[in-house]
Amino acid sequence: MNPPRGMRDILPADKARRERVLSVIRDRYLAHGFDEIETPVVEDYDRLHAGIGGDNEKLSYNILRRGLDADAIRAAADDPAALSDLGLRYDLTVPLARFYASNRGQLPSVFRSIQIGPVWRAERPQKGRYRQFVQCDIDIMGDDSARAEAELMVASLDAVDALGLEGATVRINDRRILDWMLDSFGFTDAERPGVLITIDKLDKIGPEGVAAELRERSASPAAADAFEAFLRRPQTMEYHPFGERQIRKALPEGAPAELVEHLVGIGEAVAVGRGQSDIPLVFDPFLVRGMGYYTGTIFELAHPSVGYSLGGGGRYDGMIGRFLGQQVPAVGFSLGFERLVDLVTETADATAQAVVLIHDADVPVAELIRHKAALIADGARVRLERRTKNLKALLERSAADGYTAFATVTAGGDLELKPLS
Amino acid sequence: MNPPRGMRDILPADKARRERVLSVIRDRYLAHGFDEIETPVVEDYDRLHAGIGGDNEKLSYNILRRGLDADAIRAAADDPAALSDLGLRYDLTVPLARFYASNRGQLPSVFRSIQIGPVWRAERPQKGRYRQFVQCDIDIMGDDSARAEAELMVASLDAVDALGLEGATVRINDRRILDWMLDSFGFTDAERPGVLITIDKLDKIGPEGVAAELRERSASPAAADAFEAFLRRPQTMEYHPFGERQIRKALPEGAPAELVEHLVGIGEAVAVGRGQSDIPLVFDPFLVRGMGYYTGTIFELAHPSVGYSLGGGGRYDGMIGRFLGQQVPAVGFSLGFERLVDLVTETADATAQAVVLIHDADVPVAELIRHKAALIADGARVRLERRTKNLKALLERSAADGYTAFATVTAGGDLELKPLS
Repeated sequence: MNPPRGMRDILPADKARRERVLSVIRDRYLAHGFDEIETPVVEDYDRLHAGIGGDNEKLSYNILRRGLDADAIRAAADDPAALSDLGLRYDLTVPLARFYASNRGQLPSVFRSIQIGPVWRAERPQKGRYRQFVQCDIDIMGDDSARAEAELMVASLDAVDALGLEGATVRINDRRILDWMLDSFGFTDAERPGVLITIDKLDKIGPEGVAAELRERSASPAAADAFEAFLRRPQTMEYHPFGERQIRKALPEGAPAELVEHLVGIGEAVAVGRGQSDIPLVFDPFLVRGMGYYTGTIFELAHPSVGYSLGGGGRYDGMIGRFLGQQVPAVGFSLGFERLVDLVTETADATAQAVVLIHDADVPVAELIRHKAALIADGARVRLERRTKNLKALLERSAADGYTAFATVTAGGDLELKPLS
Repeated sequence: MNPPRGMRDILPADKARRERVLSVIRDRYLAHGFDEIETPVVEDYDRLHAGIGGDNEKLSYNILRRGLDADAIRAAADDPAALSDLGLRYDLTVPLARFYASNRGQLPSVFRSIQIGPVWRAERPQKGRYRQFVQCDIDIMGDDSARAEAELMVASLDAVDALGLEGATVRINDRRILDWMLDSFGFTDAERPGVLITIDKLDKIGPEGVAAELRERSASPAAADAFEAFLRRPQTMEYHPFGERQIRKALPEGAPAELVEHLVGIGEAVAVGRGQSDIPLVFDPFLVRGMGYYTGTIFELAHPSVGYSLGGGGRYDGMIGRFLGQQVPAVGFSLGFERLVDLVTETADATAQAVVLIHDADVPVAELIRHKAALIADGARVRLERRTKNLKALLERSAADGYTAFATVTAGGDLELKPLS
């Protein structure tokens, strides 16, 4: 008697923490001028399988068409896609692009969206990963300037601060810089997607591993050699402080000025928006990010307390056009909600009084309810508990559930609140 | 380019109102000692089709098994259920019963749950009804006393008050009273489910319609006659004030004392919990509620401003046992979230400052972001807008989106906030 394989139930203490994290993030994003929207969790099958979702398309849960008869099922043996007309979304980006195309006339010319909701992927179940999990995205559509990146980053860094995780930084790169760099080493356009997949493994397999894989994979051994030589330069990994000098130092000679300036402009605006003199950005020329739809800046949120990223995103100026038939610049930032929840320890508002009323079976219902109502009217949270033989265990469990005081209710008696510790 | 058929996108103003309603309801239910939980939106196919969900089972969206080959699909032509291993939930009650069975060891002996989330039904699309909609349930498991009903009702009436919808009342009946009443008229046990379906139409087809349908349907014309005579008594429809005298007056002679006392006890406790001298309950001997799983009290939330119910629920002491193999008393109350959202007009916190910063293209990004950050630090919500030719339209749209002030940003200039009205 368990939830479906790879799924999970969320018990009260976890749920309270999740709702608190959501509420802090939502509050910060709203303050930064983003507007929350919601789309159905299902989208049309064809839209989910249009080639935008990358590998996630293969992991989607598809919904069986209603009303299929035996003949239709038999016919679908050779065309299984005919069995489904809908699917559960595997990310929030494809639905957002569809939403924007559907509702553009009712949205501001620069639209800043918040989307928070579950997505589903039929991945092989593994520890700590679930087939239903929450994504938390902000996106800006209709602004191709560095303003958009700066707004996303300042808002997301503020949200993470508000969760008590100060000190986060943003690793940043630009797909156009990557493209230029690979070009300058001599990789062909056709090789580029494969080369990016290999570079994305740098953290895992190191420079030697990357170089070896590129040599196997690439038709241009000279390009692989040039790349390895570049990787081995001592200054390549010197990432601080963020600015034009460091970006140029981390790249091969001759990087296009407008791309470097774009990054520098984002960094300056983020520092101003955060009210700090140090720019909380790190240029990383080997940051790739997996999705094929990125066209410009790409970034990831890093925090000194953990070795994995807490979120990320990038520019995907081409995608809305695939739905709308008209190009609209777009850039998004997805917070790693499930990871943030694990890092945040504080749960509910600790200042509120929470009272357990312990009662015997003979206390009249109306009397119990009267005591409860009086405490709620004073702003407390109140739970009724029947007295059990093991009072100590009951009090311990109540304290673990976040209750701060208790009182024993006897028929006709007064309440005396005692602290629970 | 629309959402899937029967589904909808939720735009910012609606989303803000929905989140506000949710947050008020959640806050009130937590104060009343309920704990929020969450279950996956999908459950195992067999569990969703175990006969508990009534007609909703037929409306469920089923999920296609992953990895079916052509042979498996062909074989499923004669056994379509083999195509699905999972389904989207059509209510929150079946998942709650499953959750309770899965996690009982970690829950308090009396468990008060809050569940808020979407459910799906493949109904024929019609105006104002959607195939994905939010349900908002509280349930109490492990308490068979009138305390449980009283806690549910007081909490729900408080929540509806907090939404600005004061003056709600609860119509109440008991399935055991209905059973006794039908028995006393001479209907057989076997006829009972059909008779209840007919009585449930009383509001729509009136006493004559009910009597006619019972005569057609029932093998006992004498029972139908007795029921019609009872319906035509003048005092049957006199519902006020709530109390033993009125309950007995509204029923045939000889109603079982313990059932009447149970209702009276609930009423007294609710009045005390609400701090009011009038009991906000109305006994309605013809309230049926559709689901087959109810075993005791049943109730609906009524509000003078609307002709439809704003929620309802009842006791379903048998259901948990079907999952757990051990009887656990349970009673639940489901607020009609989608209906409440339509009635609540207030959206976001109206006291907070919300500022639109209108800027020309030549204002440096860092300067804009600095102004924005300063206002956010003062507690405002801030949206950037590029100046457009039609400034009036931009200001009107900003006011409609809930913004309260604006300022024009020029390069190097100071901000001057002006009210938006």
